[in-house]
Amino acid sequence: MKAAILSVGTEILFGQTVNTNATYLSQGLNELGFDVLYHYTVGDNPKRLEETLYELMSKVDLIVSTGGLGPTEDDLTKETICKAFGEKLVKDERVWNEILERFGKNHWEITKNNEKQAYVPEHGTVIHNAVGSAPGFAITKDGVTIVSMPGPPREMKYLWNNFVKDYLAAFSDEKYYSLTLRTFGIGESKLETVLIDEIHGQSDPTVATYAKEGQTQLRVTSKHKDINQARKKVEDVVKIIEEKIPGKIYAYEDIDLQALVGKMLIENNLSISSAESCTGGLFASELTNVPGISKVFKESYVTYSEKAKMEILGVKQETLDKYTVVSEQVAQEMAEGLYRKTGSDVNIAITGIAGPDGGTEEKPVGTIYIGLCYKGETKVKHMKLNNNGRIWVKNSAMLNMFHMIYEAIKADA
Amino acid sequence: MKAAILSVGTEILFGQTVNTNATYLSQGLNELGFDVLYHYTVGDNPKRLEETLYELMSKVDLIVSTGGLGPTEDDLTKETICKAFGEKLVKDERVWNEILERFGKNHWEITKNNEKQAYVPEHGTVIHNAVGSAPGFAITKDGVTIVSMPGPPREMKYLWNNFVKDYLAAFSDEKYYSLTLRTFGIGESKLETVLIDEIHGQSDPTVATYAKEGQTQLRVTSKHKDINQARKKVEDVVKIIEEKIPGKIYAYEDIDLQALVGKMLIENNLSISSAESCTGGLFASELTNVPGISKVFKESYVTYSEKAKMEILGVKQETLDKYTVVSEQVAQEMAEGLYRKTGSDVNIAITGIAGPDGGTEEKPVGTIYIGLCYKGETKVKHMKLNNNGRIWVKNSAMLNMFHMIYEAIKADA
Repeated sequence: MKAAILSVGTEILFGQTVNTNATYLSQGLNELGFDVLYHYTVGDNPKRLEETLYELMSKVDLIVSTGGLGPTEDDLTKETICKAFGEKLVKDERVWNEILERFGKNHWEITKNNEKQAYVPEHGTVIHNAVGSAPGFAITKDGVTIVSMPGPPREMKYLWNNFVKDYLAAFSDEKYYSLTLRTFGIGESKLETVLIDEIHGQSDPTVATYAKEGQTQLRVTSKHKDINQARKKVEDVVKIIEEKIPGKIYAYEDIDLQALVGKMLIENNLSISSAESCTGGLFASELTNVPGISKVFKESYVTYSEKAKMEILGVKQETLDKYTVVSEQVAQEMAEGLYRKTGSDVNIAITGIAGPDGGTEEKPVGTIYIGLCYKGETKVKHMKLNNNGRIWVKNSAMLNMFHMIYEAIKADA
Repeated sequence: MKAAILSVGTEILFGQTVNTNATYLSQGLNELGFDVLYHYTVGDNPKRLEETLYELMSKVDLIVSTGGLGPTEDDLTKETICKAFGEKLVKDERVWNEILERFGKNHWEITKNNEKQAYVPEHGTVIHNAVGSAPGFAITKDGVTIVSMPGPPREMKYLWNNFVKDYLAAFSDEKYYSLTLRTFGIGESKLETVLIDEIHGQSDPTVATYAKEGQTQLRVTSKHKDINQARKKVEDVVKIIEEKIPGKIYAYEDIDLQALVGKMLIENNLSISSAESCTGGLFASELTNVPGISKVFKESYVTYSEKAKMEILGVKQETLDKYTVVSEQVAQEMAEGLYRKTGSDVNIAITGIAGPDGGTEEKPVGTIYIGLCYKGETKVKHMKLNNNGRIWVKNSAMLNMFHMIYEAIKADA
């Protein structure tokens, strides 16, 4: 089935808001097997919106619309859609009571405009909104369906995940089964090249790749009348993928590496400390994004200068002189010094060149050494990261620190 | 003049790429005085692209298009636009030589497909691309102009800033003058309320607000045949804004607070150290995003546990017992301990509750104390940040640390 996403909002046309809703809905609709042919954005202008609706009604079977359902006078999406689909708006007492209750609970003042939000298309399907005051709705006319949702991403996602996804899945008598794989250490284009047969060669299961800051995500989706058959088809393709990219998949759910490692540390009660040079605190900052990490994380050091590496971690002057600060030996002494100082189970240290200056022919920008002293035993990993700018190098180095810990905990399990 | 942005790319319709180009171009076109009425996205499909072009040609005066100019066979935007605008494609020897030179320099293999990129519309304007191999172009026919640029944001921005912006500004005999103000400590909606007369009351100068992670940006733009008149109109409005939000503007250019403070530290040769609890290393990480910061930044501590605060910074057990760890007194002792340890000019310390757990009635999630020991003198700032989640609280707390340093250096100047 052909689909279009219609975003309504002058703020998008002013460039004040990035249209992430269209991206989110595109992913969801493609997974359900819809062909998304258009993204259209129009402002809060009833005439242009109406024209656009007629155009799309002649082009696609499904229009998924967001925005313009708010209480102000500018918000005329609902009225305009109902006009184009020949629907009358009627007051829905259930929705009205929910709005009254919501406002009462929060001691908000209710205005005439809020009552507008209780009106819904007479023959449409009302979509309950538990996280905002504007309900969504769906109408079908002459073989074309429109689903209209509020614009705030939090509300849109709530409606999508709690109703719209299943509502649209029922357009087909087939059931969808999806599995998300998170990978590390393989770029999106490399992944696509390796998996080219799975990605381009077949339409069921579909395999989609999404780049997520160095941690490419794969989503394998299949459909079948029998959900178990769909699941089997997905699992068969996942087995092939596992064989093609051994060691690259770190999770079978949508979780980033930092959160996963944080979880593993907490669950295994492994205390952790870090000593950072080129990442400048980014490792510690990402680790402390994990709720509950204070159970295992006590302290950490950013030892930017050579002096700090010596005074805080006990790196030897002769080691710095002999091997220079960006070296395997210094990474090793940093990790071991950290272990002596903190007695942690996991002691991770990094030294490297984030750029833009400081690179040499032998050790260009992007050169890093990661030392990991895990339960008293130290290993050092040396990498040459691409020099895609200072912030990119820092981020990539930080992810490699997490991955080294991930591998150590896995090997120890 | 009415304008539309046309994005070409199946990856956008798959939800693999967020359409940030449309946002960027919308900001630019609005500043130049164009009314952006539509954003359309279509895939790499010549038939649908052609239909969409005809539709837009009947609706607007200017179409700004991105994407589909690559060397592969899928990339047919140029051919399709030329068909719709009645233009023949001819080989441009200058572009071809640039491609040959670019490939030679990088030792890349040149293929038949690359030659395709040297073809340009016979009567169009060729737009030089110094950062990629696909040139852009502009064609005008029957009062409608189309500007076509490559899709990669880096290339699009290069073409926009080095050619397209001026090319489109010349459509009017008026000159544009813009000034960007960066603010801190006032949210986007609050800012809009305070400036409501300036924002809604007038069309020249225009005042646009853009939220940028806690640092709202204002852009004031005016047009006039005489650029000095435009500048004067902008400066008059900026004066009014300065009076309405005293102390909130920290820069008159597009620079974030972290980069600005980093620059101030380097320029004033002020050494800096940090001791972080609730921000968990985020301050140090943001500071070390600034190139050249190693000149003034030597070391930093993440003292997450009470024990680390005592052992590393010399916070007293009795202070912790009497006032608890999230208190003015502990922030003060952290900053002073850091000064004793490092002797830095700027010593910034923070203790607080990032959540989701750890909040109390008296000290809810979002409570922070920032201690700043500046050239030996200590001040403590207490704030209750909104609890919009752990990562939001960390980010907001980090920005407040930078702002406190900004104010201290300014007061010292």
